[in-house]
Amino acid sequence: MQRYKAIVSYDGTDYVGFQRQLNGKSIQEELEKALYKMTKGMSIGVVASGRTDSGVHATGQVIHFDYPAILPIQRMQKALNSLLPEDIRIDSVEIISSLFHARYHTCGKQYMYHVSLGEYQSPFKKRYALHHPYRVNIDKMKQALQDVLGEHDFTSFCSTKTDKENKIRCVTKADIVYKEEEQELIFIFEGNGFLYNMVRILVGTTLQIGDGLKPVTELKRLLTVKNRQEAGPTAAPHGLYLTSVFYKPENQWFQTYEENKGMMVVDTTN
Amino acid sequence: MQRYKAIVSYDGTDYVGFQRQLNGKSIQEELEKALYKMTKGMSIGVVASGRTDSGVHATGQVIHFDYPAILPIQRMQKALNSLLPEDIRIDSVEIISSLFHARYHTCGKQYMYHVSLGEYQSPFKKRYALHHPYRVNIDKMKQALQDVLGEHDFTSFCSTKTDKENKIRCVTKADIVYKEEEQELIFIFEGNGFLYNMVRILVGTTLQIGDGLKPVTELKRLLTVKNRQEAGPTAAPHGLYLTSVFYKPENQWFQTYEENKGMMVVDTTN
Repeated sequence: MQRYKAIVSYDGTDYVGFQRQLNGKSIQEELEKALYKMTKGMSIGVVASGRTDSGVHATGQVIHFDYPAILPIQRMQKALNSLLPEDIRIDSVEIISSLFHARYHTCGKQYMYHVSLGEYQSPFKKRYALHHPYRVNIDKMKQALQDVLGEHDFTSFCSTKTDKENKIRCVTKADIVYKEEEQELIFIFEGNGFLYNMVRILVGTTLQIGDGLKPVTELKRLLTVKNRQEAGPTAAPHGLYLTSVFYKPENQWFQTYEENKGMMVVDTTN
Repeated sequence: MQRYKAIVSYDGTDYVGFQRQLNGKSIQEELEKALYKMTKGMSIGVVASGRTDSGVHATGQVIHFDYPAILPIQRMQKALNSLLPEDIRIDSVEIISSLFHARYHTCGKQYMYHVSLGEYQSPFKKRYALHHPYRVNIDKMKQALQDVLGEHDFTSFCSTKTDKENKIRCVTKADIVYKEEEQELIFIFEGNGFLYNMVRILVGTTLQIGDGLKPVTELKRLLTVKNRQEAGPTAAPHGLYLTSVFYKPENQWFQTYEENKGMMVVDTTN
């Protein structure tokens, strides 16, 4: 068996999320179906860096899987793309050490969240950006986001449905780019890990600051109070994109789950 | 009754086209349903500059309709947008003379056609651009398009399903913009009118020139032979956008159909 790593983009609109579920088609299922066809009937499991929720998109999701033959990477990419639906695309493939694990060895992720301002949203954005038809103070939002940089307990920004005990994460980037021509805000977050719905709750709360409903110090206060109920709403999934996954260097890829576990940065669905 | 003119954008993917049909939902039906709700039960007919086919998009379709009250234009826009599905948007509304007719008084249109190059297409473009995964010679295509400028018989570039006798149209712009970052070609066509499938057949044939399958003089030759069968394929509908409609000055808007007819520039579905 040869292990492959691949970068995957997908339009999450028509899926129940990355992970296989009984109630609808998932990205994982489509990837595994393509591998099943390529191998004429082998069930090959696909492991991703983490799940994404229904409606959430990716331009840089990372997966690994073991394949029973050594194919040139271009051939692997071409074969998968020819079998996948058009809303899932393999952007690149590499052959990788069998020690590599797409989830265990992440050391960080980048997410972006798209918000279209303007009274009416373009019909071409309804699947791809949250519509927020209000005047927002972008400078205030950027200023507020400075407070989440560094290591904090993000309990206030985590869905209560999580099963993670440890809510401490380190955020290394929290910024907004405004594309004037398209009247679109793009939030950019980077960090060592993100709790369940963390990016979406951060966006929902920061927009309240931009709207003037909450003071610019609100994120700072929420980090202290550690209470999900006091934070803003979870912004809709269709604005969210998993854009990059960062990995530890190869000398930190361990053989066993226990060894890896000691080094793991927790991360869950977003 | 007060006549209103409006500019409409739509994502045509999930529609059978602009015009009402028995086999599925149309843009016209959605607009008329919204007006029906606003008037609590009046059947108001919506007239567009022309039809668009199933899957074809618009960012500048123009319509007119007669409404039984004089509403401020912002209120009319807001009411319609609140009742329309998210893939149809009213971009602007104006109150206009009851002589104005969205179809009779057009004097030209602009269409764009999006083509994504690159071996694999982004999952986010599958509804919005034709995927053409070949190296194309853009300069040759631009040069070839020069030959369609001016007044010509476009029989070779018209679906045989048309009911129009007169195939002479004047094309005033035929160009290509290449967006390198997105690996996307945008064809831009302007003219006094376009025959059924004319833009899509022009694009399909010009791409053959770009691929080196046909000589750069092919469009010129096709204008002479006047035979649809010799031209290239009709490019898929989902790359096509109706982007602008141009109108005659108000002193050429006549009262009766017969008077208008004498002045009409023919135009049909694209």
